Amino acid sequence: MSFRYKIIAEYDGTPFFGWQRQEGVPTVQQCLEEAVLPLSKCPITMFGSGRTDTGVHALGQVAHFNLDRDIDPFRVQECMNAYLRENPIVVLSAERVPSTFDARFSTVERSYLYKILNRRAAPAIMKNRCWHIMAPLDEEGMNTAAQYLVGTHDFSSFRAAGCQATSPIKTLNYIKVWRENELILIECRAKSFLYHQVRNIVGSLFMVGAKRWTLQKFLDVFAAKNRAIAGQTAPAAGLYFWRVTY
Amino acid sequence: MSFRYKIIAEYDGTPFFGWQRQEGVPTVQQCLEEAVLPLSKCPITMFGSGRTDTGVHALGQVAHFNLDRDIDPFRVQECMNAYLRENPIVVLSAERVPSTFDARFSTVERSYLYKILNRRAAPAIMKNRCWHIMAPLDEEGMNTAAQYLVGTHDFSSFRAAGCQATSPIKTLNYIKVWRENELILIECRAKSFLYHQVRNIVGSLFMVGAKRWTLQKFLDVFAAKNRAIAGQTAPAAGLYFWRVTY
Repeated sequence: MSFRYKIIAEYDGTPFFGWQRQEGVPTVQQCLEEAVLPLSKCPITMFGSGRTDTGVHALGQVAHFNLDRDIDPFRVQECMNAYLRENPIVVLSAERVPSTFDARFSTVERSYLYKILNRRAAPAIMKNRCWHIMAPLDEEGMNTAAQYLVGTHDFSSFRAAGCQATSPIKTLNYIKVWRENELILIECRAKSFLYHQVRNIVGSLFMVGAKRWTLQKFLDVFAAKNRAIAGQTAPAAGLYFWRVTY
Repeated sequence: MSFRYKIIAEYDGTPFFGWQRQEGVPTVQQCLEEAVLPLSKCPITMFGSGRTDTGVHALGQVAHFNLDRDIDPFRVQECMNAYLRENPIVVLSAERVPSTFDARFSTVERSYLYKILNRRAAPAIMKNRCWHIMAPLDEEGMNTAAQYLVGTHDFSSFRAAGCQATSPIKTLNYIKVWRENELILIECRAKSFLYHQVRNIVGSLFMVGAKRWTLQKFLDVFAAKNRAIAGQTAPAAGLYFWRVTY
């Protein structure tokens, strides 16, 4: 008999080599798997909704795992958080779900948030939590350009070299760029993303915001389906895996 | 000939033993003073608008210092930030001011922000940046109680033992408690504060928010002018020295 649990986790990605378990380095998956050990008594596998890279944060990563005992979900959450105390990872919620639930494959929509600190001085309070850009950015121009990405398109211009997806065609449901004082925030929503897609989109929107590219240049880059002529990959520290809809 | 500079600084208070220079431990004042050395060539004294305690942050601490050369303020800012790179302190702005300007004594109003993370799970992203309270807080009740503190009163109930002020009478210009999702924010404004006054006010407002105290009990505590019966001192990590008006 097996019981499936869904958890939502928040983490500071700074000290981790990303989500996925790797030999010899700390990862989020490994920490979460180990935090279940006191309950499961034997190694379990934690399946995440999306892999995050080194330095990428999560406000609401979702994962599932199985236990061979029926343990109260609140106790699961509390035990995991007690174990995780020394790590910048917390379990925000835990619930029992049907065995058909899959954190990765049941996903209807994932949402990412990207934070740019747009001011002269480097971040002190937000160190490792944002991309610092000194040049004043035009967030309205960025938002205008971003709207052309909504819908189903070939995103090759924003696809990282190591991407394992079979196709560069993805459907971006929603994107919004807005300012909150010194912060520029970018939200992206889609069922799934190409590898580095959000960070690559942000890197090219930055070119528009900094007035280094016109809107037309941005559209040309997008239409070219050529990663080599697009903007840089925005730093991991500004990216937050925000929430998942099922 | 002496030239006076005003700087505004942001810092993460976590690694510092507060603002004030002390032998053998890192402090904000010491870091800022050392960051001026490459320009001044000789030790200078940095005068802050308000001393912050160990672990207390600043979004807009103000300080002044003198140089015996007339150096462009922007160059002062850039040189200091280059020197401060390894520390979580940044200079947000620098300007020349008349020698009559005093960061501490010219202050018209200081404002503090206090952040409470109000949810079951501990902070991951906001570790060392907030006070974590699990019990659901009634921010409206807290705000109602807080309004009774506005005006000129004897704040003995919220005055720390080590306070060096000659009188416990202070004028609180403004206080507001509001919620932004899981965060409860408390802003306090006054010309000056007693030692630990904001943190002690927050500690007692917490008792109201957690429904451990009625509004009447809060008012009785305030009227008693007795620190011993008031709430705890809220942790330093949630406090931000926000801005100063001159």
